[in-house]
Parts: sequence; structure tokens; C-alpha cells
Amino acid sequence: MNKPAVYSHEWYMHKALQEAQIAADAGEVPVGAIVVANNKVIARAHNQTQTLTDVTAHAEMLAITSAANHLGGKYLTNCTLYVTLEPCIMCAGALFWSQVSRIVIGAADPKRGFSTLGKPVLHPKTEVIWDIASDECTDMLLSFFKGLR
Amino acid sequence: MNKPAVYSHEWYMHKALQEAQIAADAGEVPVGAIVVANNKVIARAHNQTQTLTDVTAHAEMLAITSAANHLGGKYLTNCTLYVTLEPCIMCAGALFWSQVSRIVIGAADPKRGFSTLGKPVLHPKTEVIWDIASDECTDMLLSFFKGLR
Repeated sequence: MNKPAVYSHEWYMHKALQEAQIAADAGEVPVGAIVVANNKVIARAHNQTQTLTDVTAHAEMLAITSAANHLGGKYLTNCTLYVTLEPCIMCAGALFWSQVSRIVIGAADPKRGFSTLGKPVLHPKTEVIWDIASDECTDMLLSFFKGLR
Repeated sequence: MNKPAVYSHEWYMHKALQEAQIAADAGEVPVGAIVVANNKVIARAHNQTQTLTDVTAHAEMLAITSAANHLGGKYLTNCTLYVTLEPCIMCAGALFWSQVSRIVIGAADPKRGFSTLGKPVLHPKTEVIWDIASDECTDMLLSFFKGLR
């Protein structure tokens, strides 16, 4: 049997951007997230706070729940979460509990991102990779908010 | 028409403790939460992380979602959340987004509670009341963990 193909962080971030586009098309703030295990996408999600009338329905939260359903277990050890925007404090707290192995971030969020706290809120075993396809991730958010004006 | 009865914080905390007991009976870490609007309980929830295989299924998260469903709107302005244990960082982040008016807390959580961050993570408009029926809330957690040994 062939080994699963190994793709770059940019490749996976584009999958997360596709999710963000689905959010934008639905009038939602365009943030997308996917979870990858063994080089396979096991969960895809986008922000649905408006659609579900639920402030907790951020892309990362839905992706964590979906990945756990797929795995049949609560913990995302050996998983990578790709997200187009730096997680907020709620999502960082959820990622802590998930024990996710790695978080790959597109655009930074200098207003609401977890790193603005200046405190270690993620799990000590979680690796963080910043700035992957960040221009595209930022552009998607900027065009969305420009369209609202 | 009669006005709805006004109960004490302790009275509502006992409702949250009833939810915590349901969690304990299901083998879940016993934390319960309710949301009150106009003196009426509009949402009840308990920790279901094991049952739902989902680290995000804390009592507060489920209560926020349930209260928003009841109200038909995302924001919990004019609502009070009663919770038997100090919210973790994830739940505090969610409560920030909900703009909940007031949070009433039973037992403090010196290990994982949001206040351990020493940063203002809740919404500036959210009032916090500590230490309501805290002995009972603590006892429920202690007996649960004692039973596990």
C-alpha cells in the first residue's frame, strides 16, 4: 500500500482557507479550521456563530468536536489543527484540554488572539507554528469586513 | 399578573448543584451550571465531556448554547450564569463572547480557574460574585474524586 502523501503546511492552510470561504459565503466572519492526523484531514469546520446563534461556534471549537467524533476519543494527541486566524482565549482553552500536538496559524489576531494574554495558556506539549499563508488569511478577513461597510 | 419570585443566589446555586449531581451520577466530574433571566431558569447543563467524548462539553459551554437557543439570540446580556466551579479559561473566553451580565461562582478552582491567569479575561461589563454555597460545591467534587481512588 502507498503511504499517504505528505503535504506542506501551506497546502493544508489552503484547505482551512476553503472553509473560511464557506463561512464568508454564509455571511460569517471568515475563519476556517481543519484537523490533520497521519497526513489526512479528519475534520473541517468554519465559524458558524451567526448561523447557529451561538458564540461558542468558532471554527476551532467545531473542528475539535468533529475530530474527536472521528477519532472516537476526546484527545487530539498526534493531531495538527490548522486555523486561518490566531485562536481566541476560548479556543486556546479548548485546545489546551484537547492536548492537540500542533497548532498551525495563518493570520495573527493582535486584538483577540490568545497570545495577547502573554501567558502560557496552551498545553505544554503543544507546538505552535505561526505565519503560514498569513497574507491570504488576512486578506480574506479584510475583504469580508470591507464588504460590510 | 404576579411578578416572578425572586430567589437568593444560594437557591439558584442549589439548582446548579442538582445539575452537578446528575453529572456525578453519570460518572462525570460533577460541575453544574444554570442560566437565569428575569429570575427564571432558562438553561440547565452539566459537564458531559465523557458522555459526549468532547473536551469542549463543560457545563458552562452547554449552558451558554442552551440559553442562546432559548433566547433566540447569541448574547446573554441581562442573564446570570450560576456555576458550581470557577470557570476554566475556555469557559471564561466563551463567557466573554456571550457578554453575560453576571457570573455567580460556587467553589474556586486554584488549579485551572480563569482567575489564576491574573488577567481580565471576562467582559468588562460582567459582574462576578464568588463563594456562594462554596462548601457544598467543593464537597461534591471532593467526594467524586475520593470515590475514584
